Amino acid sequence: MQNIKFSHIEITGGYWKSRQKINSNITLESVYERFKETYRFDALKCEWKDGESNVPDIFWDSDVAKWIEGAAYILNSKYDETIVEKIEDAVGSIIKNSDDNGYFNSHFLVTEQDMKFRNRDCHELYCAGHLFEAAVAYYEITGKDAFLKAMYKYADYIERVFKIEKSAGFITPGHPEIELALMRLYKVTGEKRYADLAKYFIDEHGKQPDLDTYYNWVNEYYNQDEMPIRDRKTAEGHCVRALYLMCGAADVAEEYGDEKLLKACECFFDNIINKRMYITGGVGSTNIGEAFTVDYDLPNRTAYAETCAAIALAMFANRMLKICADSKYADIIEKTIYNGVVSGVSLDGKSFFYENPLEIDPEFNNVNTSTKQKKRLPITQRLEVFDCSCCPPNILRFIASIAGFLYGFDDETVYVHQYMDSKVNVDDIKITQKTEYPANGKINVKCESDKKYIAFRIPGWCKAFTINREYTMKNGYAYVRLDGNDEIEINFDMPVRVIAANRRVHANAGRVAVMRGPVVYCAEGVDNGADVKSIAMDINSKFELKESEFLLPILKTTAYRPKKNDSLYYEAGDDYEEIPLTLIPYYAFANRGETEMQVWILKKH
Amino acid sequence: MQNIKFSHIEITGGYWKSRQKINSNITLESVYERFKETYRFDALKCEWKDGESNVPDIFWDSDVAKWIEGAAYILNSKYDETIVEKIEDAVGSIIKNSDDNGYFNSHFLVTEQDMKFRNRDCHELYCAGHLFEAAVAYYEITGKDAFLKAMYKYADYIERVFKIEKSAGFITPGHPEIELALMRLYKVTGEKRYADLAKYFIDEHGKQPDLDTYYNWVNEYYNQDEMPIRDRKTAEGHCVRALYLMCGAADVAEEYGDEKLLKACECFFDNIINKRMYITGGVGSTNIGEAFTVDYDLPNRTAYAETCAAIALAMFANRMLKICADSKYADIIEKTIYNGVVSGVSLDGKSFFYENPLEIDPEFNNVNTSTKQKKRLPITQRLEVFDCSCCPPNILRFIASIAGFLYGFDDETVYVHQYMDSKVNVDDIKITQKTEYPANGKINVKCESDKKYIAFRIPGWCKAFTINREYTMKNGYAYVRLDGNDEIEINFDMPVRVIAANRRVHANAGRVAVMRGPVVYCAEGVDNGADVKSIAMDINSKFELKESEFLLPILKTTAYRPKKNDSLYYEAGDDYEEIPLTLIPYYAFANRGETEMQVWILKKH
Repeated sequence: MQNIKFSHIEITGGYWKSRQKINSNITLESVYERFKETYRFDALKCEWKDGESNVPDIFWDSDVAKWIEGAAYILNSKYDETIVEKIEDAVGSIIKNSDDNGYFNSHFLVTEQDMKFRNRDCHELYCAGHLFEAAVAYYEITGKDAFLKAMYKYADYIERVFKIEKSAGFITPGHPEIELALMRLYKVTGEKRYADLAKYFIDEHGKQPDLDTYYNWVNEYYNQDEMPIRDRKTAEGHCVRALYLMCGAADVAEEYGDEKLLKACECFFDNIINKRMYITGGVGSTNIGEAFTVDYDLPNRTAYAETCAAIALAMFANRMLKICADSKYADIIEKTIYNGVVSGVSLDGKSFFYENPLEIDPEFNNVNTSTKQKKRLPITQRLEVFDCSCCPPNILRFIASIAGFLYGFDDETVYVHQYMDSKVNVDDIKITQKTEYPANGKINVKCESDKKYIAFRIPGWCKAFTINREYTMKNGYAYVRLDGNDEIEINFDMPVRVIAANRRVHANAGRVAVMRGPVVYCAEGVDNGADVKSIAMDINSKFELKESEFLLPILKTTAYRPKKNDSLYYEAGDDYEEIPLTLIPYYAFANRGETEMQVWILKKH
Repeated sequence: MQNIKFSHIEITGGYWKSRQKINSNITLESVYERFKETYRFDALKCEWKDGESNVPDIFWDSDVAKWIEGAAYILNSKYDETIVEKIEDAVGSIIKNSDDNGYFNSHFLVTEQDMKFRNRDCHELYCAGHLFEAAVAYYEITGKDAFLKAMYKYADYIERVFKIEKSAGFITPGHPEIELALMRLYKVTGEKRYADLAKYFIDEHGKQPDLDTYYNWVNEYYNQDEMPIRDRKTAEGHCVRALYLMCGAADVAEEYGDEKLLKACECFFDNIINKRMYITGGVGSTNIGEAFTVDYDLPNRTAYAETCAAIALAMFANRMLKICADSKYADIIEKTIYNGVVSGVSLDGKSFFYENPLEIDPEFNNVNTSTKQKKRLPITQRLEVFDCSCCPPNILRFIASIAGFLYGFDDETVYVHQYMDSKVNVDDIKITQKTEYPANGKINVKCESDKKYIAFRIPGWCKAFTINREYTMKNGYAYVRLDGNDEIEINFDMPVRVIAANRRVHANAGRVAVMRGPVVYCAEGVDNGADVKSIAMDINSKFELKESEFLLPILKTTAYRPKKNDSLYYEAGDDYEEIPLTLIPYYAFANRGETEMQVWILKKH
């Protein structure tokens, strides 16, 4: 299967039109300004001198690269000369200051010049990968190829140092990214050497954990060195590193028809979605090592669930979906894009979460411990920029290219993976989706195509649906025979659902989450008063939908709270008072000041 | 009111007879051997030389002193020459190696000799206090006064350096203890200067927080410097420091009739028991600073609830009880002695908890975080000795002198605060208690006394009781008129009770604890299988009592567990299976290997 590139698709209305508008009009500029203020753009000029402040950090290039990639995507729908100027300015510095051999890294070019490619911990290949992605994006949208050519040269140099001469100080990158980026470079150039180099890195990972250097404070899981990728059964270590690596692995598995590698990718995916993923699509159960931990360890208040990790999970699922048209992959994409990814950006588009907890209890967060040390907990309010600011530009590029998740096709079939009000017109495929999804489950699809079938994903959450045409089901997709000029009406029943977690997830014992369609809801203190954690909900509650300021409806129901009691401990009884309960989409939490938040609500039966 | 000293009371049967037997026969020797192995006794010889290993730690003297105190108490019921020899050996070293001015500290005498009393952080006054307590105890039990006399000299020196000359490097101790110890010294000698010195320290605490030095990693709460004691309304900072200090404050308030100080003591007590205490009588909500945090912040899995803090709470409550015969104080003593104190020692008497959590979830404790750092959680199995081994000898002396909590008296009344199978015969008071309490609530009391009344505490947990005599109630005590030779039958109804926590205690939302009499119960994985956190209990459950290996009965009932489900998330329903639930006394947890443990059980209604 191939995906239809987002650049051929126009989002014409609904949720994503609003999100993209804020992304283009606010987020793009806001992230740019914050990166400018923090010297990330200036660093590309390579004018930093010993003794000056603002030492270029080892990962700054990747921040800028993701901004360039996002900016390029936004140019696709709205050409804007000032954006092009900003990109050209940055790209010009990168090209001008690259070494003759193609090497570029704004940290090592001005600081430790003799340490280039000596230290595995230093994100050079990670930055290189993001530069490659930015160059490919900018070329694909604008046709300008100077940046891309500079990156060919850099890739060639990496091939020489790492694969041919093996003269680098390490074998595989500490932070994966280069693998998937090389595959993008390969696809835009057709130059097989780049795919081979990606495969080389994939093959070498975990082969010689003792030889390959890594930070002295981490173990072999952190840098994905615990074992060769093809032997793995579970998702381990730093989540973003793991998922970026497995994106590259999936690309390589597809390109080389590598069944063993594909199998490892499947195991990895299944382990995540069946045992190590928050209901929001977030992953990362601990801030320590920003890592996966063990099956069913999914604490809510200390969840890491990095925005970048949810993005990376969607990226990985999308690659797996391309290899196998199974709705389980598209379901996870849907789960992340409506929950754990978009929670990462404020509704005004200006501020960001790095971590996306499923519970906030501010009163008990930063209590006086009588020392200067505090409990380590996720922040409760989004920030405009971080020292390690990977998430903001990642969301920027993600939302700008969200339509890339919509459609796939093969010789016979066009696949509708996601539902967004949109138009596509490419080669023999013309599709118009009219829908307010996920505000409701009605979708009208007009399709002109010579393909034999159009296949609609039936979301995993959906228990009843209608399609006004005959269809056959396969791997979660409803295949409808095309006549060449078709109008198809789909209706997914979208009741509010009350969800339990596996009893092994101790953090959620006795608790339920509320979802409607793919959207996870949460209860905030600002709507429901104090002690949200003590509010109990009947699993058979009736919910009322109300329009809201959050793009999608909020839910209202009746719930129960223990009556106020002056005693610290007292004889238990059925001392509940009925209270109204308001639930808002999870992604909208923390947009109205610091307040309690709970995804998992106590279950009253 | 005065207390009847434990040395006049014999525990003749039941729970405490068993506990004391293990304490005398096992714990005494075991702690001695561990302290010997770890050079704590050798350190008293002051023969350590620069460059040698086993540098005497600044708090080692306090460990040994508490052991001497406990050993002396044990001598009271069973004179044993080998114990006396061990004590004499230690005491001999202390006397021999004290400076001419009386100063003794096995760290500063051999290491930083010019740093004596220069650094507030170094526990010298804390160690001195424990040496004073040990000397008083040894003198009171054996009549040997050489140690006590050496300590008078040391106390005189402290008075000179701290109060008269003010030549020390700080004003008040970093770790309180000296205050209550000086009051003991005063009571045994009648020398008012010692009480005055205790009062001086109490008065100075928190007066000049900026002038007084403290560790640079703590704030003013840690060393009890946030404000003068008389201005305080809440319990703050390091729990043991706070409680030892307030023990001294209560002693001083009583001695000097200081109403303002007494009021502060009451506020402090009420704040703890109404808002900052675990149901086990444990205090300390965080390991960071070993501290109180804020009202209702009582996490179970990360509870600190240091054994010494529960002991100190009982010590403080006992002092308050002496000032005011209100059952709320004796209730808290009872709560601690059957729960948060005795959980600190294994049933075999050899190993100890420093921290006493209310939840253990071993499978999710030390998960691979992909770094060398791990989550900081309480240990799950008791240890024989710690680097900072304050709790083991503290339990030793506590259990040896437990009978000291039994009786108080004033001119008219003898007070029965606690119920233990025991005999007392002192002055005009002869009481024999025959009881299996708290295995059941029946108590037979024979009393010969010239007092007018005998007053029985009616435990706060007790909703129905009978006394076979007329009585009048006052402050939770039932006053019975004495005839001179009385036999009184008391029966406290002791059903199993299901207890809820205030809704502000978010950690316990939707959960209940089970108690019978003063004893808190818990569920362990070894009895109940995995996922104890997911087991739900009807608050109207019927419980069956069974004899057990844990001195008190265990409880059996029927509970509910979600059925096994392969999905990580699924539509919530009433998918429970009935299971038998076994609850054991909390103090007995972790005596059968590492296993899950829950005090707060999910509530099914």
